[in-house]
Amino acid sequence: MSTPDTAVAMVLESFGEPLVPKEFPVPDVEPGALLAQVTAAGICGSDLDISGGEDPRIKLPLIIGHEGVGKVIETGGEKRDMFGALLQPGDKIVWHRGVTCGRCYYCAVKRNASLCMYRKVYGITLPCDEPPHFNGCYAQVLYVRPESEIIKLPDDVDEAILVSATCSGATAAHAMELADVQIGDTVLVIGPGPLGSYAAAFAMERGCRQVIMFGTKYDIERMKLAEQFGCKTINIHEVNQQERKEMLLEMTDGIGPDIVIDAAGTPRTVPEAIEMAARGGTVSIVGVAVPQGETPVAMYESIALKNLRIQGVWVSDARHMYQAVQLALSGKYPFDQLVTHRFPLEQANEALATLERREGMKAVLEP
Amino acid sequence: MSTPDTAVAMVLESFGEPLVPKEFPVPDVEPGALLAQVTAAGICGSDLDISGGEDPRIKLPLIIGHEGVGKVIETGGEKRDMFGALLQPGDKIVWHRGVTCGRCYYCAVKRNASLCMYRKVYGITLPCDEPPHFNGCYAQVLYVRPESEIIKLPDDVDEAILVSATCSGATAAHAMELADVQIGDTVLVIGPGPLGSYAAAFAMERGCRQVIMFGTKYDIERMKLAEQFGCKTINIHEVNQQERKEMLLEMTDGIGPDIVIDAAGTPRTVPEAIEMAARGGTVSIVGVAVPQGETPVAMYESIALKNLRIQGVWVSDARHMYQAVQLALSGKYPFDQLVTHRFPLEQANEALATLERREGMKAVLEP
Amino acid sequence: MSTPDTAVAMVLESFGEPLVPKEFPVPDVEPGALLAQVTAAGICGSDLDISGGEDPRIKLPLIIGHEGVGKVIETGGEKRDMFGALLQPGDKIVWHRGVTCGRCYYCAVKRNASLCMYRKVYGITLPCDEPPHFNGCYAQVLYVRPESEIIKLPDDVDEAILVSATCSGATAAHAMELADVQIGDTVLVIGPGPLGSYAAAFAMERGCRQVIMFGTKYDIERMKLAEQFGCKTINIHEVNQQERKEMLLEMTDGIGPDIVIDAAGTPRTVPEAIEMAARGGTVSIVGVAVPQGETPVAMYESIALKNLRIQGVWVSDARHMYQAVQLALSGKYPFDQLVTHRFPLEQANEALATLERREGMKAVLEP
Amino acid sequence: MSTPDTAVAMVLESFGEPLVPKEFPVPDVEPGALLAQVTAAGICGSDLDISGGEDPRIKLPLIIGHEGVGKVIETGGEKRDMFGALLQPGDKIVWHRGVTCGRCYYCAVKRNASLCMYRKVYGITLPCDEPPHFNGCYAQVLYVRPESEIIKLPDDVDEAILVSATCSGATAAHAMELADVQIGDTVLVIGPGPLGSYAAAFAMERGCRQVIMFGTKYDIERMKLAEQFGCKTINIHEVNQQERKEMLLEMTDGIGPDIVIDAAGTPRTVPEAIEMAARGGTVSIVGVAVPQGETPVAMYESIALKNLRIQGVWVSDARHMYQAVQLALSGKYPFDQLVTHRFPLEQANEALATLERREGMKAVLEP
Repeated sequence: MSTPDTAVAMVLESFGEPLVPKEFPVPDVEPGALLAQVTAAGICGSDLDISGGEDPRIKLPLIIGHEGVGKVIETGGEKRDMFGALLQPGDKIVWHRGVTCGRCYYCAVKRNASLCMYRKVYGITLPCDEPPHFNGCYAQVLYVRPESEIIKLPDDVDEAILVSATCSGATAAHAMELADVQIGDTVLVIGPGPLGSYAAAFAMERGCRQVIMFGTKYDIERMKLAEQFGCKTINIHEVNQQERKEMLLEMTDGIGPDIVIDAAGTPRTVPEAIEMAARGGTVSIVGVAVPQGETPVAMYESIALKNLRIQGVWVSDARHMYQAVQLALSGKYPFDQLVTHRFPLEQANEALATLERREGMKAVLEP
Repeated sequence: MSTPDTAVAMVLESFGEPLVPKEFPVPDVEPGALLAQVTAAGICGSDLDISGGEDPRIKLPLIIGHEGVGKVIETGGEKRDMFGALLQPGDKIVWHRGVTCGRCYYCAVKRNASLCMYRKVYGITLPCDEPPHFNGCYAQVLYVRPESEIIKLPDDVDEAILVSATCSGATAAHAMELADVQIGDTVLVIGPGPLGSYAAAFAMERGCRQVIMFGTKYDIERMKLAEQFGCKTINIHEVNQQERKEMLLEMTDGIGPDIVIDAAGTPRTVPEAIEMAARGGTVSIVGVAVPQGETPVAMYESIALKNLRIQGVWVSDARHMYQAVQLALSGKYPFDQLVTHRFPLEQANEALATLERREGMKAVLEP
Repeated sequence: MSTPDTAVAMVLESFGEPLVPKEFPVPDVEPGALLAQVTAAGICGSDLDISGGEDPRIKLPLIIGHEGVGKVIETGGEKRDMFGALLQPGDKIVWHRGVTCGRCYYCAVKRNASLCMYRKVYGITLPCDEPPHFNGCYAQVLYVRPESEIIKLPDDVDEAILVSATCSGATAAHAMELADVQIGDTVLVIGPGPLGSYAAAFAMERGCRQVIMFGTKYDIERMKLAEQFGCKTINIHEVNQQERKEMLLEMTDGIGPDIVIDAAGTPRTVPEAIEMAARGGTVSIVGVAVPQGETPVAMYESIALKNLRIQGVWVSDARHMYQAVQLALSGKYPFDQLVTHRFPLEQANEALATLERREGMKAVLEP
Repeated sequence: MSTPDTAVAMVLESFGEPLVPKEFPVPDVEPGALLAQVTAAGICGSDLDISGGEDPRIKLPLIIGHEGVGKVIETGGEKRDMFGALLQPGDKIVWHRGVTCGRCYYCAVKRNASLCMYRKVYGITLPCDEPPHFNGCYAQVLYVRPESEIIKLPDDVDEAILVSATCSGATAAHAMELADVQIGDTVLVIGPGPLGSYAAAFAMERGCRQVIMFGTKYDIERMKLAEQFGCKTINIHEVNQQERKEMLLEMTDGIGPDIVIDAAGTPRTVPEAIEMAARGGTVSIVGVAVPQGETPVAMYESIALKNLRIQGVWVSDARHMYQAVQLALSGKYPFDQLVTHRFPLEQANEALATLERREGMKAVLEP
């Protein structure tokens, strides 16, 4: 693909209204930046919140889409990936969805770019009314800024499989880094969606003794997939909480799960996560993506007496994306089966509707 | 002191009643154990809970007192301290208050003896009706079991100064280990008692940029001592919560405290600790020593979005005692000023009453 | 099996001479100890050094054998495993080969029982001339001391498969703990024996991107097994060192292996391990089991400029044994294929000879 | 100071020749960059290697000087420091000497910017023949690039005191991060220069029990200063190596120093550092700044059997600079006494000569 003069994007102009196809001029590429053809854009659960107007960070008009994989169209001068590989037109690449400064207290001193003071996100915090316009992945092209970390991909990769690695996968990697699974630990994951699937795979990759996945009666297909990932599964609509607790104790020689990853993040799951965790364990609050009021926590019985850690996890950085991409590329887990729906760009509204109806696991746009 | 035939202890026979002096036969010393003369026994806040019957672990009759320092009277065969130093009659020693198995999952696999499945504590979980009787420190002697970790002390040490190291100091060391203060961090400590004082000193010893201590109008003397420890202090009865928050931001270039140690552990302080902590920070729940109902926590705004860690801290192990003893011996902080009252053994009831009236900082029995 | 009056062991009476079968009285079982029927005893490479007189720690007469798995015959009172499971006659168990004090500076403060000041090892540092005699695993029974950490095993396990977990596996777990493999790292293992096989499996369990195994022309069968473990393999007799280095760079986007585990530990492999490691990487010195003179190291070019870590690894502790046992039980790796020879107890000399001739991978006695 | 049209720098035109004063045009300031008046520039030991032609990285002509502190003259648009503080002309600032990309594998995945694939250093790897010319600190002004991390300083700080924080201090912080001093550890520092002084102070800030400093008969003044920092000192010309070892064991209850920081980094000190370190300890190779051949290491006796870690340390990143600056600003240590000589810019050659004659501790240019 040579650099086009214009390209099409699906634009959110009013909250709660369908996305509208619009054509924008393709910008010149400044030094260090690159123009990418978007070949796969993931439909993420938070895209529904964004289009519905529930995310306070959004300014319209916006090209939604923070999960993207693509091909180099043009680079602003010599441009290399993270490993120093020279990028050429046609190369498949993945970029980090967060654009961070690299120089502030959080980036440079705390080495935690997820908290960068100036963090921007493609498809979320960068509106499209001004050049370079192409700031989101529901579009034919994305303008990848000089600050973005990039990994060159093998030529034969199916890009659709990697879109989850750029968001759910990276966030799961962050959760895992902060949860610090030790070899021989038992990990409980609550919520068998893309985030939970990545969390389960990472837990196995950290040498855990077993991963147990909690799901609901609405997750029958997802639970089957979790089993293919290697999880033991428990349907919470089939066994009550007391029984579940006993099953966990039975499976762990009486200890309980050392780590609980709450990838659902609801007011119902957080207290259960805290209840189920072993003494000395960690509860990872990684699935809480929207305000949901307050959860009562018994600081003596649940936290102090159990020597428990509750660890909030906010987004992810380029290190986590690298880890998720490596995991997806490893072929050790059936990540290809996460992708249940594929749509062309112009059917973005239909793709969002699919997600809203909770059909399948993951829908991907292939612009 | 040669081994006596009998010795006196102050015994709790009925909850809520004064301790009663009683004489017990001194037991033979089995191999690996030792008999110690108790030369200083700390009066700990939890001793009030114990004597009042609020601690469900207690079986009567009990010799209270888990904070102790003393001298070797007799050893069961050749006996050495942690460093291999041979212990002789007359040597000053400190022992670990928790008696742990060293072999269970928590001790051996998790290396977290604070959670030992079989943990016992002198003065708390070992009643005195059966031999060896001398299981608590409000007594002339203590029977130190073979499993107890022991450190030989310099001859010239004032034992009273070290009693806090065996409980508050060790617990603060545990909190600090789990809080992982980085060089340049700001640490906020809430509650200027012995636990908070040790936490502040340890925070300074971990290279923090500054320690800020929150206290109340009832803590005027304690706050002065905190300043001698090197803390900046804020009296919460003089500035309201919003003002306090702004002061903290002002003192930290807008970041907030990286670590908050809640050494008070009340339903009022825990939410403030969470509110004050910086993004990416840690709140240490170390002062919550009794059940206190549930604290509401906003999982999205306070935990996920802030990437916050809440870390429960339960008791401590021998490593922490070693660290607290070294700190107290270093002479870098005025720990001697923590000890505000000294009583002979037979005035144990008066010592407890002093604590109940919140007089001074720390009372010590010198049997 | 009920407690016998006497039992047979293969005894080393003179260095360099064959082991001699001898009968000893079975001792009474003190409280906390247990008597185990040895059902599988591993022949370890160091057993050759021991019988040949090259290990300065040995006092004769000695029952060799530090790798053991067995069944409970009798316990000294109520006895539980690490998880609190009550042990009954007939239960399959594995015990930790090192007997450590749990209370010294290394055990209690450094939490590194591998360095225990009083560490003893079954089959190595405990001669058999005095009761309880049964201090090594080349015997019908082992007297398992009260200090020994124990894990109860599933009834259906093949004990022979677990013997390597108690020594090579645990030591590999220790190496991995100190090497701290991050998700996405590349790991190079040098030496495809039992230690290297466990190291490779643990590296995969720590989420590494790939494990590359170096072996020699004498390791053809072992390299095939390494491939079954999931390793990429390079025969150093087929490609020279410069070529190997280029292959590694090619496989790692120009970075080199983040972690190099030298499981061979020879004067030839250590310098290569240092040479191959990536900048910022770690070289694990875990296979150096005997004195071998001095290795020249360029402190500027190889250590400072590369920001390299060289990490010595000495033996292992009960945590590591737990991790290795869990790994072996997981069924994720073909550890059963490590066991290439099985002998009855009375053929212990033949088993040692097999090892000396470098036949197969691992020989096991089944007394 | 308003932006001048030209400014003067001391330029290295030929190796081994004196620096020559030269005037260059002051460049325009691009967005994100800033122009700083250099108010203090440290003379570092490596500046001698550079001017002597021993550093292979150097291309001439070069403005030497990588340690700098200064004042803002002009910013390229709105410019903020690490904490988001707006920078105004006249503000005192310190910048990081290394200019790193923030996006490569080492920066973004390994979070180790010291190893950045594209790292440049003011005063070392950036020649001055092309604009912006002002790439080193032996000059009236420095052109601070957009990538440079910046900390705004208090108005009343003496800049000369901070120059060491930007190089020796930051490198010591890096060593300390990788050495991971635990509370209660003993630290031995070899070499009482600026690097060793910072290492000693950081060790105390990590809660070590004691810092012992080894120096020579040429370090009498430096050793006195080390004592003011709180170190115990041993003059190696007064006690031989065996005696030194015994003294260390005596001071550490028989354990030896847990951490040894070799801040001298000579072929004589490295083997002694390895010899002195406790079992399970760490030897930090931080002072080895030039090639020095190979050091023989006994891999069995010194590394494996001791479970020892040898940790190379290469330069430092912005986190470390922050930590060193905080330490210097804390006022807890007499860092002001490190600065023994101050020269105007035009006496740069004399300043270098002072260092060459090993006079004093630290010379600073005040342009």
